[in-house]
Amino acid sequence: MSAGQAKRFVPAAGAFTVTLPIRFSQCDPAGIVYFPHYFDLVHACLEDWYEQVLGYGFAKLIGSGHGAPIVHAECDFTAPSRMGDRVQLTLLVERLGRASVTYRIVGHVDGYERFGAKIVTAFLALASGKAVPIPREIRAKIEAYQGAAQTSLN
Amino acid sequence: MSAGQAKRFVPAAGAFTVTLPIRFSQCDPAGIVYFPHYFDLVHACLEDWYEQVLGYGFAKLIGSGHGAPIVHAECDFTAPSRMGDRVQLTLLVERLGRASVTYRIVGHVDGYERFGAKIVTAFLALASGKAVPIPREIRAKIEAYQGAAQTSLN
Amino acid sequence: MSAGQAKRFVPAAGAFTVTLPIRFSQCDPAGIVYFPHYFDLVHACLEDWYEQVLGYGFAKLIGSGHGAPIVHAECDFTAPSRMGDRVQLTLLVERLGRASVTYRIVGHVDGYERFGAKIVTAFLALASGKAVPIPREIRAKIEAYQGAAQTSLN
Amino acid sequence: MSAGQAKRFVPAAGAFTVTLPIRFSQCDPAGIVYFPHYFDLVHACLEDWYEQVLGYGFAKLIGSGHGAPIVHAECDFTAPSRMGDRVQLTLLVERLGRASVTYRIVGHVDGYERFGAKIVTAFLALASGKAVPIPREIRAKIEAYQGAAQTSLN
Repeated sequence: MSAGQAKRFVPAAGAFTVTLPIRFSQCDPAGIVYFPHYFDLVHACLEDWYEQVLGYGFAKLIGSGHGAPIVHAECDFTAPSRMGDRVQLTLLVERLGRASVTYRIVGHVDGYERFGAKIVTAFLALASGKAVPIPREIRAKIEAYQGAAQTSLN
Repeated sequence: MSAGQAKRFVPAAGAFTVTLPIRFSQCDPAGIVYFPHYFDLVHACLEDWYEQVLGYGFAKLIGSGHGAPIVHAECDFTAPSRMGDRVQLTLLVERLGRASVTYRIVGHVDGYERFGAKIVTAFLALASGKAVPIPREIRAKIEAYQGAAQTSLN
Repeated sequence: MSAGQAKRFVPAAGAFTVTLPIRFSQCDPAGIVYFPHYFDLVHACLEDWYEQVLGYGFAKLIGSGHGAPIVHAECDFTAPSRMGDRVQLTLLVERLGRASVTYRIVGHVDGYERFGAKIVTAFLALASGKAVPIPREIRAKIEAYQGAAQTSLN
Repeated sequence: MSAGQAKRFVPAAGAFTVTLPIRFSQCDPAGIVYFPHYFDLVHACLEDWYEQVLGYGFAKLIGSGHGAPIVHAECDFTAPSRMGDRVQLTLLVERLGRASVTYRIVGHVDGYERFGAKIVTAFLALASGKAVPIPREIRAKIEAYQGAAQTSLN
């Protein structure tokens, strides 16, 4: 988080990017974002991608009897963010498995990385709590997105 | 998060453990803890360890002109937790660097792991935002804790 | 929130009181608790009262097909609280209606009020979303608590 | 929160309105927004109004040595909101005092009220913690807004 290690990040044209404001409520007594809130931003980006790219909101997903809980999450906090910043979050699909998806979600401002997260979600049937294959309709849309956005993953 | 992969976790006698309740407010529409709240529990455990083991609260740390922001955080969500659960969190020091500390914090119930997190904090001077060596007084106490708790890290 | 208006609060012996720590995560860039978190503390107190006084946890309540959503909430923030404070919350039943309960929950430290909240919860059947009378078993326990704690409401 | 008491709300043309999505993270195991999050939405509306109408962000306010803590907050929860809803929040200035402002902030969807909040903020000097008159520049802008939006307060 020190100067001199600024890290460039420029998303490819086909990659999904959403802009979210840093709120007063997300900042701590040291004046910077309290780190669990970054994961909240990351999940908000995932929700918006579901809605706008897959055309399949989280409410519909849960209504269909499926859940997509996070089984792993990690994040490098490259540079701090402060109240009033507007952070862009770009979502990339790193790996599409049979029953799980690995996402890379990068927060950036003016072409420089603020944080880089990886989250893994597993599909499961809510009734049994057991892993199930990704529904065909969702898989097809994720593959289409990978085609459009893949050049931006390096 | 499926049955059959239950993972045992039993902390060593010298390890710091705090018990925290899972609140209604931490659970999502699928009935389980919304994952950023696990990082909030992890940070609460770190705060309590500072206060009770190091004898040096976060308020005092920030008052002394230092910050200890999280530069990396990750977590495996081994088994879900629900409203009403009482989760035990055990803190282990995985690595004590010159200016950073790596913690392993495990959430467990009845001897089984619920989640296993790793967080890295960097010491810095709040005024300059630059990394600084861990203050001597804090380092000595962390080393003493490592001696007492180390047998539990495997 | 200025000096000179410190307000005494001493709960009666029979009143339910829980002590909760003010966390780093609850404080804002001005160094004091961000106000929605006070309502979170108020709800935590209500949850603990259900569990410890009524002997009937929220998980059980929702499992029984009932909900008790908040239909009104208000709070006066008498004096600020800061990271590291340990606030006591005392719950009083102000009014027990046919299908709703009005609670007064006061946050205090060392005999002085920090905040005074009032919340109204309505009982409803989760399936229909319609108001229902308070279940007899819960009503009897609330009445018993009122008898024990009433002298402290003024 | 039952049917039959739907309450119309249509803001006047000059009133500030912001649209915010209801996130997965804001909903509880009963599937509706956990009530402290409504106050978070209310504060987000206030922040956006400061930025977009007063042209004076919260970061700048705190940077100028002032704070505007909430001294009173209340809310009626008229109808529940769920994940995926997009709620409009309209801000009205109910009273402009010497050192405090009372806001009425209404959440609504398709012309019907979801919640109606009132919050009172007091201006103070951060260094002394004492109440101070509202800075002249801010007062003038609030008065101008009242003139433009007043017809919508009834």
